[in-house]
Amino acid sequence: MGLFTRDIKSLDDLFVHTLRDIYYAEQQIAKSLPDMIDKASDPNLKSGFETHLAETQGQISRLEKVFEMHGVPIKGVDCPAIDGILEEASEVAGEADNKSVMDAALIAAAQAVEHYEITRYGTLIAWAKELGRADCASLLEESLQEEQATDTKLNKLATAKVNQKAA
Amino acid sequence: MGLFTRDIKSLDDLFVHTLRDIYYAEQQIAKSLPDMIDKASDPNLKSGFETHLAETQGQISRLEKVFEMHGVPIKGVDCPAIDGILEEASEVAGEADNKSVMDAALIAAAQAVEHYEITRYGTLIAWAKELGRADCASLLEESLQEEQATDTKLNKLATAKVNQKAA
Repeated sequence: MGLFTRDIKSLDDLFVHTLRDIYYAEQQIAKSLPDMIDKASDPNLKSGFETHLAETQGQISRLEKVFEMHGVPIKGVDCPAIDGILEEASEVAGEADNKSVMDAALIAAAQAVEHYEITRYGTLIAWAKELGRADCASLLEESLQEEQATDTKLNKLATAKVNQKAA
Repeated sequence: MGLFTRDIKSLDDLFVHTLRDIYYAEQQIAKSLPDMIDKASDPNLKSGFETHLAETQGQISRLEKVFEMHGVPIKGVDCPAIDGILEEASEVAGEADNKSVMDAALIAAAQAVEHYEITRYGTLIAWAKELGRADCASLLEESLQEEQATDTKLNKLATAKVNQKAA
C-alpha cells in the first residue's frame, strides 16, 4: 500500500483493494491452521480445523476466480488486521498451561478469525452488488456462508463441551 | 504478556486475560473514533460515530465494573488484533481520494472493529456463565447488544445510501 498516495479513487478501487486484503488474509490463515490443528486436543476441534483448512484452500481458489472475473491481477496486499489477530492467537496459545484451557483459547482465536472474514466478505458482497457484479457477489456469498457455518460450529463446540472441560 | 511463560492456567485466567484485551481494545477504539468522526462526510455516519463514541465510553465503565465484580485489578493488555484492525482502517482511509469513497471505507473499517468486539464479548459471556458469573455475563451482554445494534445500523447506512454515492 502506498501510505502517502491516494490510490483509492472509486468504489471499484476499494473493492479490489479489499479483495487483495482478504486474499492475503486467507493465505495467512491457511499457514496458521496446521499449528492450530497440532495444538488442539479435542478430537472434534482438531477435525473441525482440518475441515476448515480444506475450506480455506477452496476460498483462496474462489477469490482467484473473482479476480479473474473482475479482470484484475491476482495479488494480495498486507493486511495488518489479520496479522494482529493471528499474532494474538499465537501469543495466547503460547501461554495456555493445559490442554482444556488451550482448546478454549483456540476456539476463541478461531472465532476472532471467522468474524474478521465474515465482516470482509459481507462488505465485499455489498460492494460487488453495487458495482453490478452479481456474479462476483454470488461466489463471495458461498465463502461467507462457509465462514458463518464454521463460527456456529465453534460456538456449539465451545458451549457444549470445551468450556466445561476448561472450567 | 509474558511470551515465554505459561501464565494462563485456568479458564478464569483466560477470562481475565480476555477482559484485559477488550479493555485495551475499547480504549484504542475511543481514541480512534474522533478521527473517524472528523473524516466522515455523510451526516448520519458522523452522528452514528458520535453516538458510538459515547457508547464506547459506557462500555469502558461497564468493563471496569466487571473487573471489580470479579475481584481483579482494572488493567489492559496489549491487543495486537485491535491495533492491526485500526492500523488498517487508518491506512485505507489515508488512501481514499474522495468523500463518498472515504465514507464507504470508514463504514467497512468500523464494521471490522464491531465484529472484533462482537466475537470477544460473545466469548467472554460464554466463559463468564461457565465460571458461574452470571452477574458479569449480564453486564457484558449489554455491551454485546450495543455492538450488534451498531453493526446493523452501519449495514443499513451502507446499503441504503453510502455505497450508492460511492459507486
